[in-house]
Amino acid sequence: MTKHLMSQFDADLKEIRSMLLEMGGKVEKMITDSMKALIERDTELALATIEYDHEINRLEVEIDERCLEVLALRQPTARDLRFITLALKIVTDLERIGDQCRNIAKRATELNYLPPLKPYIDLPRMAAIAASMVTEALDAFVRGDDELAYGVCRRDDEVDLLNEQIQRELLTFMIEDTTTITRAIQITAIAKCLERVADHATNVAEMVIFMVKGKDIRHLGSGA
Amino acid sequence: MTKHLMSQFDADLKEIRSMLLEMGGKVEKMITDSMKALIERDTELALATIEYDHEINRLEVEIDERCLEVLALRQPTARDLRFITLALKIVTDLERIGDQCRNIAKRATELNYLPPLKPYIDLPRMAAIAASMVTEALDAFVRGDDELAYGVCRRDDEVDLLNEQIQRELLTFMIEDTTTITRAIQITAIAKCLERVADHATNVAEMVIFMVKGKDIRHLGSGA
Repeated sequence: MTKHLMSQFDADLKEIRSMLLEMGGKVEKMITDSMKALIERDTELALATIEYDHEINRLEVEIDERCLEVLALRQPTARDLRFITLALKIVTDLERIGDQCRNIAKRATELNYLPPLKPYIDLPRMAAIAASMVTEALDAFVRGDDELAYGVCRRDDEVDLLNEQIQRELLTFMIEDTTTITRAIQITAIAKCLERVADHATNVAEMVIFMVKGKDIRHLGSGA
Repeated sequence: MTKHLMSQFDADLKEIRSMLLEMGGKVEKMITDSMKALIERDTELALATIEYDHEINRLEVEIDERCLEVLALRQPTARDLRFITLALKIVTDLERIGDQCRNIAKRATELNYLPPLKPYIDLPRMAAIAASMVTEALDAFVRGDDELAYGVCRRDDEVDLLNEQIQRELLTFMIEDTTTITRAIQITAIAKCLERVADHATNVAEMVIFMVKGKDIRHLGSGA
């Protein structure tokens, strides 16, 4: 490969990296905005967040196409090939995080028709952890930093615990006062969405560890 | 490309196709077995299903590696490139379906320590639909059949409705008799797992439609 081609290829990789980070930033915005819409009972922001998901979908298609172009034109091998195919997988997780945020925003619009059930305490904590997991999983990817990726995997347990706590608390509400059921079901569903956001971040982190460490690490403790 | 290389490449694609179908078959077996373990209260089968997930994880790594090799050695373009990168994405969905079945089997082992709550009616129906969605999504992929893929997407609504029905029914149990709560929570979680299996099948089907129809179809009605 000539020096010219090499640097053009480096520019391609850099571009894919920065497109992914852009998409990651927008997905984090969706997490923040959908939660803000819920907590501040802001239906306008909820509707804007639902609309914003199109932007995430557009970026998914764009990054996929860019990766395919680079694969076709530059025919990368080894580490670079692994990087691009991983980018293709990560973009799918990011898009699905966007879908979860759209679901949260939709449920926020429905909750806004009903009186508030209780102040949100665990849910914003869950959202904050999930959002930081997304940021860190992407950082781990662009830097090839498996330590950071391991950290993301560990934090998934915190999110799962918060989710269980929320499910239990809302069940108590439903049992004590059946008029809360509709709202409690919506809120448990939102907690589930956040849990799935964290799962996607964990998936990305696991794939990064696989990229950095090789094939024996992806299914930790699975014996695979 | 010489005729010899061409046919070698065709053989590679055929191999990837058959590896994916093999993985799909094993994932369907996991759906069937995890549900059988639940319904027949068969802890041994549940434990075997948890163990079997390693096989799915092994296949994921193998197919990924095979796709990377083909990308590196044959440097496919256009439609073939799209096929292989889609295979890379689909394999991730299949592996995550395996994870959901492992979760179902784990919950089955816990439920087997407790007296039965009620006969399962909707849950096996949900599982049967989800399993057929997985089969059909993969068939749609290997045949490039977008009509079949559209059918899979439509059936996702059936699964969502069954899931909502199960959630509501079990909530009634919990409210009427708080001693059912532990079991009812486990069963609602299993319904959620099946819903996610169907979601993964739908994701695969959407990607197939995208592969067949081009970039304007993936986010149906999203305006993207």
